[in-house]
Amino acid sequence: MNTSFNKRRVAICAMLTATVIVGCATQAGRGVTDGPLTIRTQGSFFVGGRDLRSETLSAVPAVFSPVGTIAVDQMYVRYQVPDKVTGKPLVFVHGCCLTGKSWESTPDGRMGWDEFFLRKGFPTYVVDQASRGRSAADPSTIVSVKNGKTAPDQLPPVFSSGREGAWEIFRFGPQYPSVFPGMQFPLEAQSEFWKQMTMDWSRALPAPNPTVPALSELAKKIGGAVLVVHSQSGMYPFQAVGLTREGIAGIVAIEPAACPAASGDMTPYANLPILIMWGDFTEAAPVWAARVKSCGDFVKAANAAGGKAESVMLSEVGLRGNSHMLMLDRTSLDVAAWLSDWLGRHIAR
Amino acid sequence: MNTSFNKRRVAICAMLTATVIVGCATQAGRGVTDGPLTIRTQGSFFVGGRDLRSETLSAVPAVFSPVGTIAVDQMYVRYQVPDKVTGKPLVFVHGCCLTGKSWESTPDGRMGWDEFFLRKGFPTYVVDQASRGRSAADPSTIVSVKNGKTAPDQLPPVFSSGREGAWEIFRFGPQYPSVFPGMQFPLEAQSEFWKQMTMDWSRALPAPNPTVPALSELAKKIGGAVLVVHSQSGMYPFQAVGLTREGIAGIVAIEPAACPAASGDMTPYANLPILIMWGDFTEAAPVWAARVKSCGDFVKAANAAGGKAESVMLSEVGLRGNSHMLMLDRTSLDVAAWLSDWLGRHIAR
Repeated sequence: MNTSFNKRRVAICAMLTATVIVGCATQAGRGVTDGPLTIRTQGSFFVGGRDLRSETLSAVPAVFSPVGTIAVDQMYVRYQVPDKVTGKPLVFVHGCCLTGKSWESTPDGRMGWDEFFLRKGFPTYVVDQASRGRSAADPSTIVSVKNGKTAPDQLPPVFSSGREGAWEIFRFGPQYPSVFPGMQFPLEAQSEFWKQMTMDWSRALPAPNPTVPALSELAKKIGGAVLVVHSQSGMYPFQAVGLTREGIAGIVAIEPAACPAASGDMTPYANLPILIMWGDFTEAAPVWAARVKSCGDFVKAANAAGGKAESVMLSEVGLRGNSHMLMLDRTSLDVAAWLSDWLGRHIAR
Repeated sequence: MNTSFNKRRVAICAMLTATVIVGCATQAGRGVTDGPLTIRTQGSFFVGGRDLRSETLSAVPAVFSPVGTIAVDQMYVRYQVPDKVTGKPLVFVHGCCLTGKSWESTPDGRMGWDEFFLRKGFPTYVVDQASRGRSAADPSTIVSVKNGKTAPDQLPPVFSSGREGAWEIFRFGPQYPSVFPGMQFPLEAQSEFWKQMTMDWSRALPAPNPTVPALSELAKKIGGAVLVVHSQSGMYPFQAVGLTREGIAGIVAIEPAACPAASGDMTPYANLPILIMWGDFTEAAPVWAARVKSCGDFVKAANAAGGKAESVMLSEVGLRGNSHMLMLDRTSLDVAAWLSDWLGRHIAR
């Protein structure tokens, strides 16, 4: 560890006044440091998308014309490639009501998974799902309803998740604001975390979510990608594999909201490394217990048809207390290190 | 230039299939290379924000409760600090209908200003304005109207800018699809560019835009920040300076939509380095000609009151053909290099 770097970092941290400081974590451990990081290349781009022509793009027609063409359904992608590549590219897809921010710095200011895996030698691609974050949504129905041209019930079924409801889904505790004993989410930084949560348009989008073909296009573009998805996006890589296996080297589904039906066609998954991983306390949350069961059935069916699928309860491999937001838990880098090892064992570079 | 790096990059580029490839630019020049980049620290966080309690958060009440508390008005910030810091931190704020993506890779896959200035030794902070991109918007009125509880005309006055109208505002040409002779925006990559444009909630927000106090808070947090703003956000740093000068080392307003009135109080700007810069063809676009004139009046008034303000037409310093989106023009790094020199001359580390 570079001592002068640490001194500089301490000086920077001391300079800052907020209680939650980003970038002031101590040494990351788990085989990486938080010292200087050398990147070969980085940037951002879009995949997917289609043109939409509308006459109700703007509710301020005197300033911006309501008539014109916009692009929708595209997916924003930010990537970093480490100087020394030792692993397959990882594509990180967030869950409900969140954006790619989920994979960046934790609410309590520690290193995010995007940087951890980069430091481990994996090219990392962090996306915003279609109609979320930096991936544009379509305003035309809102404007049309505001102008009286369309009935209010035709408004897109948008939603945000209040923290009180999210608390239970994220398994911080059985209900807001009680906490599971030993639960590892850094609740002292929860106010920073709630700021990550955004309006969710997914229920206004066609099926499959336009993120699915965009992920397929991205995988083909970068080649040999491992799709690392969370919660709401849990089904997307399975749907993408249904389009084509091209470019997809593996699937890591973290607490997926659903898995493919065990009674379905398993041939798309033959010989594809698939990991499904779960945090703690799932037995105490019926919705999660059901998902664990259903995904376990899928794993059995996939393996019976020549699959290489695995469902892992982190609590059974020594990683206890993880919430649904395990990439942000205090134990986030322990889980990341475990996943990095799993990737090394199951998906060769 | 590292030859093996170039070979690797060429190999990566050859592997990719899209016509617009990100990260395949040749040597950047202008005092930086696109070889390996060493970063001291990076991450993301939020500033600002407030809690909002609502009973209409969700239009899918069976799945997500409509009742609860969300955070709004916060501003997403992504930062990178270079290994060798030689300049003040730069805070990049995008304009209308766009997100922080404006400052990242160009539509034709060249290095963005975020990375150029990082390589020049400046810590860079790229934000999404409040209610844009990864900074959450408030769904409660949309849901309330959909449920019949609120009148449709109360819907937020959102808008997206169609490409046909944006073409003229961005001065790609006098009107869509004609092009100014010598105009430098990479129109061959325009389909990638239009995907950057998002729904704009700014007209639904109070004045000043919540981005303004958030910028002030960010500047105080990082210390000695130069606020680099564009178009719609042009007034924000002047409004932030009106709150407090603390933490603000200078203002770079790129084609601001407005400047402070020359008849107003100039004392907040005394002795503060201020640069206002303009691309080409402003005389051919009345709305821009008026803004150039109005900002020129401000500069005179500020300087008469002890200011250090400057308005620069890039075409008069040898940088011709720039559009309104000059950070994405083919000449983007020439403009960036010129700005880097200006910062070195006017704002000491």
